[in-house]
Amino acid sequence: MNPIKKIEHLGIAVKDIEQANKLYEKLLGVPPYKQEAVESEAVLTSFFKVGDSKIELLASTNEDGPIGKFIAKKGEGIHHIAFDVENIEIELDRLEKEGFQLINKTPKSGADNKLVAFLHPKSTNGVLIELCQEKPVNQGEN
Amino acid sequence: MNPIKKIEHLGIAVKDIEQANKLYEKLLGVPPYKQEAVESEAVLTSFFKVGDSKIELLASTNEDGPIGKFIAKKGEGIHHIAFDVENIEIELDRLEKEGFQLINKTPKSGADNKLVAFLHPKSTNGVLIELCQEKPVNQGEN
Repeated sequence: MNPIKKIEHLGIAVKDIEQANKLYEKLLGVPPYKQEAVESEAVLTSFFKVGDSKIELLASTNEDGPIGKFIAKKGEGIHHIAFDVENIEIELDRLEKEGFQLINKTPKSGADNKLVAFLHPKSTNGVLIELCQEKPVNQGEN
Repeated sequence: MNPIKKIEHLGIAVKDIEQANKLYEKLLGVPPYKQEAVESEAVLTSFFKVGDSKIELLASTNEDGPIGKFIAKKGEGIHHIAFDVENIEIELDRLEKEGFQLINKTPKSGADNKLVAFLHPKSTNGVLIELCQEKPVNQGEN
């Protein structure tokens, strides 16, 4: 089976989540199905369903947070791509052995009930890649 | 029905298509299913299937082409997101009326047997958005 199942979502860094919510609702023809704050990353997020994938808008609650720094350096725009995997620990191990540089050697808790880990853009032609896996049902917040 | 059907593909600007083909084959676990030159855009493209979407690698054959200029300004990385639509002309008309700024007021011929048109990143929080529609079977190159 293909180790990467699908594009789970595409993350877009925006300055103003309310403005961006309205704009992407017009563009995509659907409202966000979920809005969620992720305090550990200092972000407000909104999720839109698009086919079998999602668009995630990310606005910083703090200019020193990762999205605040990204926008200060590069402006608004596409921030990362997230791939859905069956088993995130197996994939992190496989990709590290293949020579990819991991930002997170072990998965952490992300938005939308996911375990997530990032690959360093240095090792992926400048693309910030997130791997994510739905949290197992017997696993709470961690 | 939702006017935007799915993420058709994600375009990634790379310097060296051969290097990037090898890297994304390792990452995604599948080889590119198609490689195609688009002379009008001065690019070499490679396509990888990922779930119901695709990853398109884009390398410039000319530093004055759009991908050559993008890399000179911003470096390698995610270049655009393409959404699949049922009828591209209806969508361009709808989005222009909604206040989006169109780069292409009428669709043009793109890679992978598609009619394509771009929205200006100024009107979409810094994201270069492509709309694309499979070419009707009775329509040849144009």
